[in-house]
Amino acid sequence: MNPDVASERKAPGFEVEKLVNLLDGGAGRTRTRRSIEHIINSDAVFNQENQYFLTQTERYEEAVKGAVHLRQKIKELGWTADGPEIQIAFRVLGGNLAFAVHRELFIPTITELGTDAQIAKWVPLAKDYQIIGTYAQTELGHGTYLRGLETTASFDASSQDFILNTLEVSSIKWWPGDLGRSANHAVVLAQLYTQEMCHGMHAFIIQIRSLVDHSALPGVKIGDIGPKMAFEQVDNGYLMLQNVHIPRENMLSRYSEVTSDGSYVKQGSDRIYYISMVLARVKIISSELVSALSKACVIAIRYSVVRRQSKLKPGEMEAKILDYQTQQQKLLPQLATTFAFHFMASSLDTFCNQVKVQVKTKGDILLLPELHALSAGLKAMMSESCSVGVEACRRACGGHGYSTLSGLPTLYTRVVASCTYEGENTVLQLQTARFLMKYLTRVDCGQPLPQSVSYLSEPITLHCSAKEKSDFLKPFIYIESYKHRAHRMIKDAGIKLQSLLQSGVEQYVAWNSTSVQLAKAAVAHCHYIVVNNFVETMEGLKFEPEIQQVIKMLCDLYALTGILDNAGDFLYDGFMTGKQLDLVTTSQLDLLALVRKNAVSITDAFDYPDKQLNSAIGNYDGHVYQRLFEWAQKAPTNAKINLAYEKYLKPLFQLAQSKL
Amino acid sequence: MNPDVASERKAPGFEVEKLVNLLDGGAGRTRTRRSIEHIINSDAVFNQENQYFLTQTERYEEAVKGAVHLRQKIKELGWTADGPEIQIAFRVLGGNLAFAVHRELFIPTITELGTDAQIAKWVPLAKDYQIIGTYAQTELGHGTYLRGLETTASFDASSQDFILNTLEVSSIKWWPGDLGRSANHAVVLAQLYTQEMCHGMHAFIIQIRSLVDHSALPGVKIGDIGPKMAFEQVDNGYLMLQNVHIPRENMLSRYSEVTSDGSYVKQGSDRIYYISMVLARVKIISSELVSALSKACVIAIRYSVVRRQSKLKPGEMEAKILDYQTQQQKLLPQLATTFAFHFMASSLDTFCNQVKVQVKTKGDILLLPELHALSAGLKAMMSESCSVGVEACRRACGGHGYSTLSGLPTLYTRVVASCTYEGENTVLQLQTARFLMKYLTRVDCGQPLPQSVSYLSEPITLHCSAKEKSDFLKPFIYIESYKHRAHRMIKDAGIKLQSLLQSGVEQYVAWNSTSVQLAKAAVAHCHYIVVNNFVETMEGLKFEPEIQQVIKMLCDLYALTGILDNAGDFLYDGFMTGKQLDLVTTSQLDLLALVRKNAVSITDAFDYPDKQLNSAIGNYDGHVYQRLFEWAQKAPTNAKINLAYEKYLKPLFQLAQSKL
Repeated sequence: MNPDVASERKAPGFEVEKLVNLLDGGAGRTRTRRSIEHIINSDAVFNQENQYFLTQTERYEEAVKGAVHLRQKIKELGWTADGPEIQIAFRVLGGNLAFAVHRELFIPTITELGTDAQIAKWVPLAKDYQIIGTYAQTELGHGTYLRGLETTASFDASSQDFILNTLEVSSIKWWPGDLGRSANHAVVLAQLYTQEMCHGMHAFIIQIRSLVDHSALPGVKIGDIGPKMAFEQVDNGYLMLQNVHIPRENMLSRYSEVTSDGSYVKQGSDRIYYISMVLARVKIISSELVSALSKACVIAIRYSVVRRQSKLKPGEMEAKILDYQTQQQKLLPQLATTFAFHFMASSLDTFCNQVKVQVKTKGDILLLPELHALSAGLKAMMSESCSVGVEACRRACGGHGYSTLSGLPTLYTRVVASCTYEGENTVLQLQTARFLMKYLTRVDCGQPLPQSVSYLSEPITLHCSAKEKSDFLKPFIYIESYKHRAHRMIKDAGIKLQSLLQSGVEQYVAWNSTSVQLAKAAVAHCHYIVVNNFVETMEGLKFEPEIQQVIKMLCDLYALTGILDNAGDFLYDGFMTGKQLDLVTTSQLDLLALVRKNAVSITDAFDYPDKQLNSAIGNYDGHVYQRLFEWAQKAPTNAKINLAYEKYLKPLFQLAQSKL
Repeated sequence: MNPDVASERKAPGFEVEKLVNLLDGGAGRTRTRRSIEHIINSDAVFNQENQYFLTQTERYEEAVKGAVHLRQKIKELGWTADGPEIQIAFRVLGGNLAFAVHRELFIPTITELGTDAQIAKWVPLAKDYQIIGTYAQTELGHGTYLRGLETTASFDASSQDFILNTLEVSSIKWWPGDLGRSANHAVVLAQLYTQEMCHGMHAFIIQIRSLVDHSALPGVKIGDIGPKMAFEQVDNGYLMLQNVHIPRENMLSRYSEVTSDGSYVKQGSDRIYYISMVLARVKIISSELVSALSKACVIAIRYSVVRRQSKLKPGEMEAKILDYQTQQQKLLPQLATTFAFHFMASSLDTFCNQVKVQVKTKGDILLLPELHALSAGLKAMMSESCSVGVEACRRACGGHGYSTLSGLPTLYTRVVASCTYEGENTVLQLQTARFLMKYLTRVDCGQPLPQSVSYLSEPITLHCSAKEKSDFLKPFIYIESYKHRAHRMIKDAGIKLQSLLQSGVEQYVAWNSTSVQLAKAAVAHCHYIVVNNFVETMEGLKFEPEIQQVIKMLCDLYALTGILDNAGDFLYDGFMTGKQLDLVTTSQLDLLALVRKNAVSITDAFDYPDKQLNSAIGNYDGHVYQRLFEWAQKAPTNAKINLAYEKYLKPLFQLAQSKL
């Protein structure tokens, strides 16, 4: 153990294991998680140590190998679908296994949109990897705007077939994971045409490759879309369809059906389509965003107590960089954000499950719009914050954070994709804003509001009541501030929108002319929700005062940093004064110094085994330089033969031999 | 030509060629640049179209091949060192040629720190690539803090040799470019020991590889440090030295020397060492930062007039995404920033040349500290802004911006390195802050101030005088605002620092406790400098009213966006009111709509040939989807044999054959 890390762990102000348990959701879950992690991490097939040296094709091969191996392992160990083991295993192996789209979109779409017969036919084969399916929605020319998709599925009553086509270049399916090299089936989203009418987007199951030799079937062109910013292991692909016939029963028909004479029959609500999107977003938040930011924090904070730079005090040793206020300012708010988002993800999960139960048991979709608005806005806000946060951690590690071996570049290039996939962030913010505008107009009518926006009908405080810096460590003070800000920004956007409409501007122009402010209002709304949720969670910990104290510090730090980062919003209408903002600054800087003391122990509580961090500079033992040096030597760029030297440099260098 | 791009170019509000000339610095320079670009772009060896598909090793080989080919080409075409051709050629080929460190650090260091004899011996060989040298400064354990470097060079009077050692793991030289696989020589920065005294950092020339077979010389261990976030083509390396002997004359001795008896003799000022760092930073600004941001703007803005998404108005075609206010807000301020920084880089170059002349002709280094402070702060601020801006452009292109083929991921992962190399940004900001604090204390003494900080002694306006939105299109209004903000933040940081010192806190603690605010003050200072410079440049264009009008719009947009992004700073002390901020918002949104009209023509004025953009979505002709589709098919991931299928999937898929 590097003594510089060891000294950080000497006297933590709290019992680390208790915080581990809190994050896991109980000591029992910690035990289960660790036992699964142990199984995974002691299996050589899953070893990812060399992944930074592999080509895109090699990464893909490893990912397929891993997925197939895990399938075998699950059978051997007798893990069942309803137990926690499989879920944990996938979380540990995360993005390094192939077939994520197969598992998380292909199968669930069939399960949700398919009839019982369709589910019975396809799902068992898919679960056993006897078929691999992709989910082909996005096209070259259209992503988030689903109604614009151009792929068509036309029913031909004579053959009882649907005929699928991607007629334009822009309608080529583009990006679906598992498509480029793996899938032999696809759920294809296409505009349904029957009896010369378009009935909008529907989902169809299509076989795209031969089960015998994996070649593309007639009328089908498939390929890989090439290199990306990350996700080298995923074979994101393209798919062209030219007059591809599929039988009538391959349209997923739980909610709508084409009968043999070509009539279109709809059953149930369209809204049900929402659910899979909503579920996907909720899952991203808990599985992708929080884990990326927490890993980045662990790596950067451990590195920052090993790295020494420049003497703070003349004559002393060089200081650990975490002792610099500027470094604390870069990293510790990110640590606080990780906790804010972890707790938010939990609450959102709970809400999501509540909605799912209501839908399943009573067909009640009343809460769905609220869940949709909340998950859209939170996904946008949290993917943005996590991306910025991971990158801040990476950059805080200086040059070593630029080395792939630190693990940080990959964390960033992966997490930032979440700002785009499953709904582009700005589009999502505006969906949340639409929900906010809808209920804002109801405030005046005195109608009851959904819980997450009920504050819009509450009286708001006009001036922050804080008088000294310690006031800003009182949660009600900062909750009130965030509430005021959200309320004011939502109202102002509403006023602008209304006044444009009243002046005779068309609805779509008014909306577009207000959209920058609407998007900001949605962010402010989500920010309030997150702060409020952090405080509620913290207050629920009263029986664990030691842990509560740690969480309180992080909660305060999260809230106050957010005020400083958005100072203009709080000063704008005189809610806060410049003097109060000075108090926030002082309080926040004090908190940095406090959190710094326990920073390493807090990151230890995420309890990541070294193999999962896969970082040369973030290991538990703090042996940063030695490990970087060892790993670098394994790089393929250190292969003995240097063709460039032989071909181009040798003749030139020979000229110098006689001169030196 | 895609009609959606063509329509954008139909009636530009100005003559594009005139803006091209302005950016080039005259019509003559435009002609020269284009002729060189033509030569480069029609040479197959320099074709970079496939670079996104190559491995790190292949990229390196291509880079070496390109560098050696250009050497030959320069000879054939008779380009001379003092002509503009070579400089332009390197700018066009940019980071894709090997030996950048050799050319920009190894040779200049010898030229600046070497004696005439040393220059005569090494430089001609180096210029002809008969030797390739690296500049080995950074170590595993130390980067920006040079005094902490651990490599030693001890003079041994008996052998008249220096003996070089990197004794600890942390002292291994790490990161130097051209070192890993190419260099046979190195300028090594090491602590000089002679007569049992340490004399601090000095530079030594060491041969590290054999000129005959390129093997590492005895006592030398070299290798490549492996994969990085970008710069795949550069062989950043490591270097260990164990008792490596070099002759006395290999210490670069223009300013200090060790005589044969081991005495240390110093001549001239230490400050001279500054110059190379300062020059390197000034060069980064003009060559790396502005070009990255301008390329990203070109790609993203062209893409945004081709991409259509969702109907703004029911019944109409889907709208170009650049017609959405939120998209304009993402991209157009970046375009304005490009111009702000282009002009700032020009002015800084001019100032830099003035200082260089003073130093060379009169040995006058009076202006050096100001140039140092200015270039440090500007490099930090501009590398930060350009990184954020490039990434904003990339994300504004949605999924396609995530594809390497868009060119955008590489632009980001490269430009963000500039936040770290040649001085980590926070460290640089604090150096600028130190300069500001020094002169702040002189204000009260009434001493004259350097030009860039002279505003600290001017009276400041307490309240912004704007009354309507058009007032914010008056440059003196926003210049005054930025001046007020910088002045106030510098003064406040100074007050905090002084009050801590007066309360008995030690200097180093006081500085550290104020460092977050000091860094912010340095940014505010630089922001004022950039806005002020933009206005001065714009006002100088009065004889080209058409162009001036375009530049004025961009200048206003840059200034107003900066106010909105930092609203808290302007509201804090009541300099602006919330109402005034609303006027800024309205004015800025109006500007977005205005700039949007000419956005494509403005980006055309950067005049990048398609080959230089190397983007599937940014070409002049706007054929985005077709080109993405064509390029993707060339990806090596589309090679015929899929080993993962053969090995892992085939047996599983066979199980399904009987069932489907």
